Amino acid sequence: MLAGLDEIRDLGADPVRGGYSRHLWSTAELGLREWFVERATRLGLGIDRDRNGNLWAWWGEPGADAVVTGSHLDSVPGGGAYDGPLGVVSALDAVARLKARGFTPHRPFAVIVFAEEEGSRFGVACLGSRLMVGSLDPAVAGALRDRDGVTLADAARYAGEDPELFGPDPAALGRIGLFIELHVEQGRGLVDLGSAVGVASGILAHGRWRLSFEGEGNHAGATPMIGRRDPMVAAAAAILAVREAALARPGTRATVGRLEAVPGGTNVIPSRVQLWLDARAETDAEAHELVATIAARASASAFVEESWSSSVEFDASLRDRFAAGLGGVPVLSTGAGHDAGVLAAHVPSAMLFVRNPSGVSHAPGEFAELADCVAGTDALESLLVSVL
Amino acid sequence: MLAGLDEIRDLGADPVRGGYSRHLWSTAELGLREWFVERATRLGLGIDRDRNGNLWAWWGEPGADAVVTGSHLDSVPGGGAYDGPLGVVSALDAVARLKARGFTPHRPFAVIVFAEEEGSRFGVACLGSRLMVGSLDPAVAGALRDRDGVTLADAARYAGEDPELFGPDPAALGRIGLFIELHVEQGRGLVDLGSAVGVASGILAHGRWRLSFEGEGNHAGATPMIGRRDPMVAAAAAILAVREAALARPGTRATVGRLEAVPGGTNVIPSRVQLWLDARAETDAEAHELVATIAARASASAFVEESWSSSVEFDASLRDRFAAGLGGVPVLSTGAGHDAGVLAAHVPSAMLFVRNPSGVSHAPGEFAELADCVAGTDALESLLVSVL
Repeated sequence: MLAGLDEIRDLGADPVRGGYSRHLWSTAELGLREWFVERATRLGLGIDRDRNGNLWAWWGEPGADAVVTGSHLDSVPGGGAYDGPLGVVSALDAVARLKARGFTPHRPFAVIVFAEEEGSRFGVACLGSRLMVGSLDPAVAGALRDRDGVTLADAARYAGEDPELFGPDPAALGRIGLFIELHVEQGRGLVDLGSAVGVASGILAHGRWRLSFEGEGNHAGATPMIGRRDPMVAAAAAILAVREAALARPGTRATVGRLEAVPGGTNVIPSRVQLWLDARAETDAEAHELVATIAARASASAFVEESWSSSVEFDASLRDRFAAGLGGVPVLSTGAGHDAGVLAAHVPSAMLFVRNPSGVSHAPGEFAELADCVAGTDALESLLVSVL
Repeated sequence: MLAGLDEIRDLGADPVRGGYSRHLWSTAELGLREWFVERATRLGLGIDRDRNGNLWAWWGEPGADAVVTGSHLDSVPGGGAYDGPLGVVSALDAVARLKARGFTPHRPFAVIVFAEEEGSRFGVACLGSRLMVGSLDPAVAGALRDRDGVTLADAARYAGEDPELFGPDPAALGRIGLFIELHVEQGRGLVDLGSAVGVASGILAHGRWRLSFEGEGNHAGATPMIGRRDPMVAAAAAILAVREAALARPGTRATVGRLEAVPGGTNVIPSRVQLWLDARAETDAEAHELVATIAARASASAFVEESWSSSVEFDASLRDRFAAGLGGVPVLSTGAGHDAGVLAAHVPSAMLFVRNPSGVSHAPGEFAELADCVAGTDALESLLVSVL
């Protein structure tokens, strides 16, 4: 394991789910931010906190047309050690190497940590980058609630942020001349292609929807089967419909990973069940058709879009230049969303993937060989040298 | 609302689910116990804490062949104000009336509060009475865990109980000569029969099972549909099978009110889903057949019985004597479990039901008219006079 990943191996370890639960502004995530600030400061970088909870570490003075690289430190519940942190650790390692060899950038340069990329606490993925580029209304964001009912605005204040300042940050965005995100691959593409690293071509269109099923809460023993209005049964039928709809449209993906029954007692027919749908497809149109099919078949009393990301095609000239510069590494797409996908609509952006032997991600078993992680840092360093 | 219910109306009110969440040894439940001790002490009763977390309040000296009446104070998550507390408040009110009219019992007499009747914290209903009669192994009970992973033994210690003492309590059980539990009805039986109160004939056989579905946790976006092992889909199919199996056997009831996905992230295929089955039928054989059908159709990797209660027929002579003594009130059965059902196998036991206009129970809308609650207390008082 890279030394940087090893330094944070105890932060946010989840004793129940396994892996890591590092949710925005939790003790664990605040600890990771502290670790980043300390590590970056030790490298001589200057810390800059932007208006949306993202952390920047500048090599020299911040300025226009900057090269920016980084990823995120938060995780899904019970996630792996690599998704997010690998990109941050590799960026810091690349800086350390460049400093060690006496390299001097000819452009402004920063390492960035984006806030709440996974959306695990407040439901909206790529929260920090979306707020920055202006694709998420800060008033809507501030009112988002976590599972305990705490609003994002209150949680931000608790963490020392000022939610009044949240929102489009053209000054910060305008400084980015080029963004590169290194990330562990979340499938077996590079395994099949026999390469330690690859360059991203694009990201599937994807979004999240919350489905609510209303029923009539009552006693599980005293209420006859006939005449029940049990929302758990309706939710179960919807889960099967979700899978069928995705199977019927090859290439699309649809998942229900989270379900909440109210009140959630064993001997109680629920009064309400909510579940969350994650749906993805190659094109925006395909994704919308998939979701429309599901909406038609799931008899939900509410079907609310919580987030939406159009399909992304990364800057083609950058992609080809980088793939060639790395000796002709593979170019491949991903089903996973990333802050680089949010930025791609605004600034030239690229992604580097590092091989994941099992393809498992968002789970404790997520892994990358040390040699592949080093190859990833090598690749990032050489790209940085080529653009700085 | 009866004054006693009004006194506790703020304890354990659930701001999220509505109604009440009064789980064993929570702040709310400890507050209810304190209220009971204070209320009983003010009536001149002597408090006796038994080895299994149950509270007794004796009129005079404890002794053999005692008449005992009471119910429980804990609730399901988001439960109603009446299920449990009505039986305790009515018992205390009956004592107050008997004292006011100068009545002196000719037998030992106690009001009792049973611990964790709903099983909402540790999963086993009628925990206090089952431990007392010896139908639940105290070692098994002590190792039960709540949703936060806290063991029952640790929670007991925190609440000042000694879990080393948990277990069969023949001394306590042996003192009970007759047990009467007054309870709000959990169906519309008395509404249809046009009576404010009724006497119980029996309780359906019922039990709880935990079904586990194992799968392969992975990224919801990067994992193709083909080849997924998604336990949420298997769990959903099982929920539909549960309903179908119960519908196919008239008179039986089967419910899934609680489901937990691990890790529970929106963008994560779960690695494991657990759900809880509540199944009930007129006879033990029917219930077992129902559960066997469900087990055969739900492809669960584990199917574990968490509790089981055989069908109960209350003491027939007592039932008929009480119904006649109350002027010929209706006799009716119930699908809901009760501590009286646990005791019925060991000591003569009876139940009084109070009319519930909507039939809703285990939900915030549970209700009984004040006049019907008073009629319940009248009935309890007259039965107590007849046996004391």
